[in-house]
Amino acid sequence: MELSEDELIAAIRTLLSGDQPGVVIGIGDDAAVVEAGTGQPVLTTDMLIEGIHFELDSISARDLGAKAIAVNVSDVAAMAASPRYALVSIGLPADVQAAWVVELYAGMRQACDEYALALLGGDTNRSGRVVLSVTVVGEVAPGHAVTRAGAQPGDAIVVTGSLGAAAGGLALSRLPPTRASRLLSEPWARDLLHALSRPVARVGEGQTLAQAGATAMMDLSDGLAKDLSRLCAESGVGARVELVKVPVAEPLRLGSPALGVDPLELAIGGGEDYELLATLDVTDLERARTELNERFGVRLTDVGFIVEDEGLVAVDADGRTSPLEPRGWDHFADGS
Amino acid sequence: MELSEDELIAAIRTLLSGDQPGVVIGIGDDAAVVEAGTGQPVLTTDMLIEGIHFELDSISARDLGAKAIAVNVSDVAAMAASPRYALVSIGLPADVQAAWVVELYAGMRQACDEYALALLGGDTNRSGRVVLSVTVVGEVAPGHAVTRAGAQPGDAIVVTGSLGAAAGGLALSRLPPTRASRLLSEPWARDLLHALSRPVARVGEGQTLAQAGATAMMDLSDGLAKDLSRLCAESGVGARVELVKVPVAEPLRLGSPALGVDPLELAIGGGEDYELLATLDVTDLERARTELNERFGVRLTDVGFIVEDEGLVAVDADGRTSPLEPRGWDHFADGS
Repeated sequence: MELSEDELIAAIRTLLSGDQPGVVIGIGDDAAVVEAGTGQPVLTTDMLIEGIHFELDSISARDLGAKAIAVNVSDVAAMAASPRYALVSIGLPADVQAAWVVELYAGMRQACDEYALALLGGDTNRSGRVVLSVTVVGEVAPGHAVTRAGAQPGDAIVVTGSLGAAAGGLALSRLPPTRASRLLSEPWARDLLHALSRPVARVGEGQTLAQAGATAMMDLSDGLAKDLSRLCAESGVGARVELVKVPVAEPLRLGSPALGVDPLELAIGGGEDYELLATLDVTDLERARTELNERFGVRLTDVGFIVEDEGLVAVDADGRTSPLEPRGWDHFADGS
Repeated sequence: MELSEDELIAAIRTLLSGDQPGVVIGIGDDAAVVEAGTGQPVLTTDMLIEGIHFELDSISARDLGAKAIAVNVSDVAAMAASPRYALVSIGLPADVQAAWVVELYAGMRQACDEYALALLGGDTNRSGRVVLSVTVVGEVAPGHAVTRAGAQPGDAIVVTGSLGAAAGGLALSRLPPTRASRLLSEPWARDLLHALSRPVARVGEGQTLAQAGATAMMDLSDGLAKDLSRLCAESGVGARVELVKVPVAEPLRLGSPALGVDPLELAIGGGEDYELLATLDVTDLERARTELNERFGVRLTDVGFIVEDEGLVAVDADGRTSPLEPRGWDHFADGS
């Protein structure tokens, strides 16, 4: 680090200046002050740690910054809320390059501009490894947040977009470098890496699903099986998932032979898709599907339905059932 | 870690349940939802990293949790605002004891109860070392936040309480264990350690100073010299500090011979006091002093005054001047 803390803060401050919506007092004071909204504040926070969530040699500073914002915005989107402000706490090793830090903030600023929220800066510290903690404050009309707890037996289970691409990107990034770089001439390979490093938060889609009658909603960060089991636990219900309906990401399907992975397994068990998982009364399904397609060009797929009995059941093409195992990533499990 | 992530989250959830002010949807969903306030939201975030800000063998989990809340509340207090909600992101090594984590959350909850804010939970991750990132959302009447930028030439420079005790506690904690434990029979030694591990955020005091006419305000986290230089830079002014007026903490004065430290140097250069530093028109000084004393039993000391010329000047008992060197802790400086 060739800059002192005050010099680095000055550089970041320049990067965060300019027009930002709703900011009364921005970076540089003890705290930021923002305009009050008309709705209820929605608050979420997420930490990205080098060596756990990312490796410095497999994601650019700009992508890392953008991703740190997007994953928090995704949590706000999953409540059917709108993101408004982001705060950042960051831990940086003493030998980090100032250019890397500036790129990181540029990525955060870019994502904030994209999702129309203001980046307020925050705390900068020394740390053994890079740690990035982002808090996003959003807003929702009073009483209109969609929780994980409202799923009813008979509801359709839906997901936006397609699943497994980020897990495919992770599998690709873990290949030996020579093998991985050979594969990078393939469009599917670049798509998989892009899905991992630049996830998209479904903000408008979350609000549209809420308006269409979503009874429960969450974002898919730890894989369909694990996240659906959490939604079911909160709602006190169970689920049946039809495996043939699970929308496996096309680049994952194309690349799975070369990667030596089972695309369905990654689509069900892989994390970091940041698609929305929701439940809806079946009578609302077609309208939701049409609106999501017309407004955002995003596919909505029903993958099964909610049942009264606890537990998650997978149904294969021949109608055989088996437990849908949550293979999502447990941050504390040994050997994960 | 003998608990899985989901089990740990369940344990934390139990600890965070019960009556919390203004919480509509608490821990356990994608994001928390809270009641809208009537003022402008005030946002701040701070990260505490093992090995940088604390060592696990020198602070208890409960103190660490309470301190993580207090230092963020202090930033909100320095804007003359009221804290409302806290969010926590935490990184935990795989071998951390569940009991330690529960104590940490108990400390956070205790501090939140003390300062009347709700603890909303947040994100839990695996990490090489303990990392704790806290965001506090507060509230201030529109237009009533006090920034660092309003100091005027002629204003008195004031500080709440006394300075240097936390730096004394740090000096004590860095002594060889046998020498430190011998000193711990002394009340001053215990007071110094307590100041370091359980700082108090000056919430009511900040609001009282604002009402009394504070023109600029910030909290003292990096030492009087460094923080005053920041306030002056934001305000475009300089300062003269009379060294004899600096309120050196009594336990530091008592312990300085045994610790082998210069108490004035620690009071000026040591960090983590979390007292408030403010500037006031001299005609407002007596009222501010009386109100702070009557309402909170807290001393307000004027330590000098703001001048037009840039730079910080120290004036000693004989009227000799020298530059007031910011010796505060630079998180990135080599050898700091």
